[in-house]
Parts: sequence; structure tokens; C-alpha cells
Amino acid sequence: MARTPVAEHEERVRALLAPLRTRDAETVPLHAGLGRVTAVDIVTPIPLPPFRNSQMDGFAVRAAEVAGAPVDLPLVGEIAAAPGEPAPLAPGTAVRIMTGAPLPTGADAVVPVEDTTVSGSLVSIRAPRVSGEYVRDVGSDLAAGDVIVPAGTRLASRHLGALAASGIAEVEVEARVRVDVISTGSELVDLGDALGPGQIFDSNSTALAAAVEAAGAELVSTARVGDQAEFFRLLLDSSVDGGAELILTSGGISQGEYEVVRETLEPLGAHVDVLAMQPGGPQATAVYRGVPVVCFPGNPVSSQLSFLLFVEPVLREIAGLPPRMRAPRILDTPLSSPPGKRQFLRGRALPAGRVATLGGPSSHLVAALAAADVLLDIPEDVTELPAGATVETWEL
Amino acid sequence: MARTPVAEHEERVRALLAPLRTRDAETVPLHAGLGRVTAVDIVTPIPLPPFRNSQMDGFAVRAAEVAGAPVDLPLVGEIAAAPGEPAPLAPGTAVRIMTGAPLPTGADAVVPVEDTTVSGSLVSIRAPRVSGEYVRDVGSDLAAGDVIVPAGTRLASRHLGALAASGIAEVEVEARVRVDVISTGSELVDLGDALGPGQIFDSNSTALAAAVEAAGAELVSTARVGDQAEFFRLLLDSSVDGGAELILTSGGISQGEYEVVRETLEPLGAHVDVLAMQPGGPQATAVYRGVPVVCFPGNPVSSQLSFLLFVEPVLREIAGLPPRMRAPRILDTPLSSPPGKRQFLRGRALPAGRVATLGGPSSHLVAALAAADVLLDIPEDVTELPAGATVETWEL
Repeated sequence: MARTPVAEHEERVRALLAPLRTRDAETVPLHAGLGRVTAVDIVTPIPLPPFRNSQMDGFAVRAAEVAGAPVDLPLVGEIAAAPGEPAPLAPGTAVRIMTGAPLPTGADAVVPVEDTTVSGSLVSIRAPRVSGEYVRDVGSDLAAGDVIVPAGTRLASRHLGALAASGIAEVEVEARVRVDVISTGSELVDLGDALGPGQIFDSNSTALAAAVEAAGAELVSTARVGDQAEFFRLLLDSSVDGGAELILTSGGISQGEYEVVRETLEPLGAHVDVLAMQPGGPQATAVYRGVPVVCFPGNPVSSQLSFLLFVEPVLREIAGLPPRMRAPRILDTPLSSPPGKRQFLRGRALPAGRVATLGGPSSHLVAALAAADVLLDIPEDVTELPAGATVETWEL
Repeated sequence: MARTPVAEHEERVRALLAPLRTRDAETVPLHAGLGRVTAVDIVTPIPLPPFRNSQMDGFAVRAAEVAGAPVDLPLVGEIAAAPGEPAPLAPGTAVRIMTGAPLPTGADAVVPVEDTTVSGSLVSIRAPRVSGEYVRDVGSDLAAGDVIVPAGTRLASRHLGALAASGIAEVEVEARVRVDVISTGSELVDLGDALGPGQIFDSNSTALAAAVEAAGAELVSTARVGDQAEFFRLLLDSSVDGGAELILTSGGISQGEYEVVRETLEPLGAHVDVLAMQPGGPQATAVYRGVPVVCFPGNPVSSQLSFLLFVEPVLREIAGLPPRMRAPRILDTPLSSPPGKRQFLRGRALPAGRVATLGGPSSHLVAALAAADVLLDIPEDVTELPAGATVETWEL
């Protein structure tokens, strides 16, 4: 049986998920905006700073009056960083001013406190100043109506700080992709239940749910079904009715019998495939009542790697997250790989850019996957690699 | 006035926050464990896999009986990946078996379906198998009692998947550091309020709160106070009574008057300092009723950079997050820097490892900080740098 190249399935999933890139906007309170992506250019309704103020603790003066410094000026009071409009500065006087305090009308420069000496009601200015020195002008950071955070920005604390400085209390951000996760398999039991013969715990729903959230999407629900097609369809309907925009399934797509996902979705036009890939050969894509469904194999390692390869890159792009890092590393020990299959081996990064494999290639080694920190990406046509060979790795 | 080197304050804050590194553990449901740090070694209560099962869709056989392949064996049924104990395999027979299904007693190898042909009730095995081939043994991933996730691991989806496979429904993780943020300044108003003369929006509480969360700590509350010392003390008491383990303040620590943080905490033994740093000279540390207090200046850019320099590295370490990335870059245009001050300029990373400054050095340029993606770290003793010089940068 001819196996489909990984890149072809990657393209198929990418095309299936393309409509998700057009997001609706939603409005959230500013403090809930961390990590969200702005849906529109956000403009500041006020100039920043909103009023002319002092950059230093010092004395507000007329620059022209200190041009012949040293010079002594009568001290006429003090302006704090506090609400209210200060009195205009009378010609021939200086006023003590704090950092951030509004400059009085008439003043056009600030003399830092370290360049002055106060004696009684006089302040001695030691050096001349030019107009505008140590003065923060209205709008010198941004004018009212200027874009403060452009559309498509993933909001970090510094963006929230700038938006808050503009008095913006709510932001329009792109809605997160709403994802449902469905595990299938009659051998599965829930965490906390007792394990009978032939039963295993459902780990895929936990792992995929967490992976969805880590990729910046919104997990709507997880569910589990055995091999009853009618229950699987009920879950799909409930996902669609619940507003899921993407459904991920695990299990039930092999060529064997009792394959509930394949049996349900293939008659509805699903594309069921066997990829030239290990682990994770069986894969499928479908559309159910207009909602894209990406179907992974049931082996825990297979389903997690399939998510990482096919769905995560798209979700991370939509969420404004950088792609997972990849880097070439030097193989510490030789390895062999099956012909005609792109193999993803679990490994440990070692010092000096080296890497060692961890556990075997089998798709049931969930603990080895947990202990790994990189994947080794071995191309289809490579069957043997000596120690010292360079391999492409993905950071986990 | 002699200014304190940045590194000295860095060490002072690090020492002040050292007790936070000893964390209490708390138990959370597995699905809430994403991104948390395990407090103890977690061992699997069951072997993984929990029962001997097939690695392939194929036929379970006795390896010795197919040693002389090709050989035909009577087919006696089918074992699915489903609950229940399969019947023992009678000598001289084969049974169809699905991936993940329990191997029957007596069988010790699986022949993949592609190496077989079924005719009626006979299966022809084309190639010999050795004992154990395509069989996943009990505990071949991990034995019961083995550590599945060691203490100190920041939980990713693959760890949650492995824990779920072990049936572990709750995890013991380190409690997050509980942080309170207090803004001070009588010129501050809340977002959404109208801005009067001399007033600015409180942006520090929003920016610091988000920065605390992004650093993996738990924001307990934010609060704001003018210049009334008695209200500031009430807020400190309320933070301590509310269980805050770290209090961050902004504003009120200059040498001027109306400096509510300095006036309140200096008599209680606060260390108030002016750093050889721009922006962000005035800094303080204190202990209030046993709780560490780190005090930043009030200028928004200063307070955000101060958090990034002094507090964030410790919080990220405690949360198991990697340190913020730093890299040398090539300056695109010349710059000058004040003598005797370590300067942190906002910049934009350019292609080919270059960097340009963005906005000026003043600490009120919040929009320029938002637009920046790197900080340029200019050492104290550097006053001029030509284009083409190498500068250290921090990723924002």
C-alpha cells in the first residue's frame, strides 16, 4: 500500500484549517488581554504624555532667563505630581517642580536639582539651559489618534502598560480558536477509575487538551466514546452545537474493525490516509456539519506527535505564537530508521549541540516521550545514520 | 551623590527574594497542571503498558511455530483493543489481533498483517518471527513505582499525557508565588475615569500585574493609593493579611517630598537607593511584617524595566521558566549614553543581527516601549558607540 508523504497531509490539514484564520473579534477587559492578539489597530484617544511635564526633580524656569548662568532667581513655590493646574510662572522667578509634575505656563525648561543651590528664598542656577530641556512635551510619545498597538500584536505586559497609559480599559482581540477533543476506544477508562483487564487510561484527551491550550487556542470540552458510532455522532453534534470550530479525535481510524471514527466519517467524505511516517501512520481529515475534524491515531505518542506536526503550527500562528524551535544537532550514537517512512524519534539534547535517542520508536512509550526534550526528524529515505551525523531536531 | 551599581541592587533583591524559593506544595487536578512545577517525584502506580499487547494489526502466534515459515495456521478468532481477558491461544493456531489489544496467554509474537494472507479459516505466515517481536511487554515503558515525572519539572502536555496514562488524576505542584502590586501617586486615576488637569492614568498596576502573571507567579491583587501614608500602610497590611508573599510598589521613592513609599518604609528599615541606571534610578527594598517589598520608581518605563531586571529573573526561575533571551547585536546607528549610568534603551531588532534604537531614553515613553522588541544594555562606562559596534540586547 502506497503511503502518503507527511508533507502532503500537512498541506491538507493546513488547507482544512485555513478558514479558522479569519477570526471574529471580541472585547475583553484590558487586564484579561495578556497573550491575546489585537483584532484592530488600537489608537490612543489622548496624547501621551497628556500634559507638558517635568522630566526631573528640579526647578522650572524660562530658559532665556538662565542663559547667563550662574544666576539667582526668587523661588516662588513648588509643583508636585498631583492633580490640578499650576499657577503661571511669573517672569524672573523659578518654581520647584517634581518629576512628572505639570510645567507652569511661562516655564519652558527644567534645571535638575543637582545643578542648583537653594539659599532661603533664592535658587542659584549654575548652568544655562535651552528651551525644552528636561521638559516632556504633550504628545512627545504619541499624538491623540496615533496607533498605540497595531492589529495582530500578541499583547505583552508592555503593550498593556501603554494602553493603560492611554486610559484604554478594554481591547478588541481576536477570538481564540474553540477546540473540542474526543477520545475513542472501548478499552479506555477515565482517570481515577479502576483498571480492568484489557483496559487503559484515556491519556489522549488530557494530553491533547493541554496541547491545545499551550498552542493558544481555547479548549471547549473533552469527551470520550467507545466504539459505538451513534454515540460518536452524538458527540460530534454536541461539539458543533456547542460552537466548536475545530474537532480533534484520537483513535478509530485504522484499517481494522471497530474503527468508529473511520466508519462514521468516511461515508461523509472523510479523507482517510496512511502516512509514510512513524509513529502515526493512520490519519484522517473530515468536515462534519461545516466544522473541520482532524483525526489522529489512538496510540498516545502518535496522537501527540500528530498534533504537534499538523495542527499546532496553524494554531500557534493564529494565536500569534512563534513556531516551535528547530535546530540541527549531532547524533551521539548511530541509529537506523525504517525505509520509506519519516521517523520522529524521541531524544535528549546533550551539551555541545549533540543529541541522543531516548526509548525506542514504538508509539506506546509515553513515559519516554515525557522524559524527552527534543524530537529527531529522520527523513523518509534515510535508513542508517552514524554517530556524528547531523539530524534535524524539534524542541519539545 | 554616589550611585549604586545595578549589579549590587540585583544581588540585594535576589537575597531578599531567596526565601520565596522554598515553596509549599499544593494538589491540583491533572488538567490544571499545565505549566506548573512538580513539587515531588511522581511515580506511576501501574506498569506502562499495564498489560502485554500487540504493537501491530496482525496475528498473534507462538514464534516457535512460525520458525519454519512459510507456514499455514488455523485462525481461531479475533482480539480487539477492548476490555476483557482474551482466551489462551491454543497450540498450533493463530488469532487475529488489533494494535493495543491484549496478547493471549501462549502467544509470544505478532505477525503484521502485511506479512500474511488469509484464506478461509487459515492464515499463511510468510516470514519467521522471533519471540517478543511486535509485542509490547508489561512495564516496557516504565515499571510500577518508577518515577514518571521528576520533581522540579515544568509540566507540558507530554508530561500530563504520561501521568494520565498512569491513571494519575491529581498532581502535587509547587504553589505559585503570590504577588500584590500597589501603585502610588496622587496624580493617578483609574482607567475609564475622566482625566483632569495634572492627572495621568495608572498604567503601572496593569503593566506590573501582567508582567507578574507572565513570569509564572500568581497576581493576588492590585491597588492604588495617593500620597497618604496611612492609606499606604492599610494597603500593605491588607496585602500581608491576604497572604501576599511579595509586594511590588511603584512610585513614591524619590528624594522629593510626598514620597509615600519612602516615607513609610524608610523608618521601618527599607534600603532606599539611587542606582547608576537609566531609566529607573530610584529603587528600594524593604520587609513589611515579614513580607518582602520591592519598590520601583513611578515612571512607567522605569517601573517595567525595573521589574524585568530585578524581580522577573527570580520569579521565572521559581516558575521553572527559562530566562529571558539575551544576544549581542550590531548597532545600526551611533548612540551616546550618560557617563556612570548603565542605560537600557528601547530598540527594534533588524535583519542580519542588527538593532536600532526606538524613541529616546526618557522614562515616560510608554508607547515606544510597547513598540520595542529588544532592550539595548549599555554599560556604565560607555558614553559613545559608533554604528557597527556590538551591543548586548535583551528580548522583550
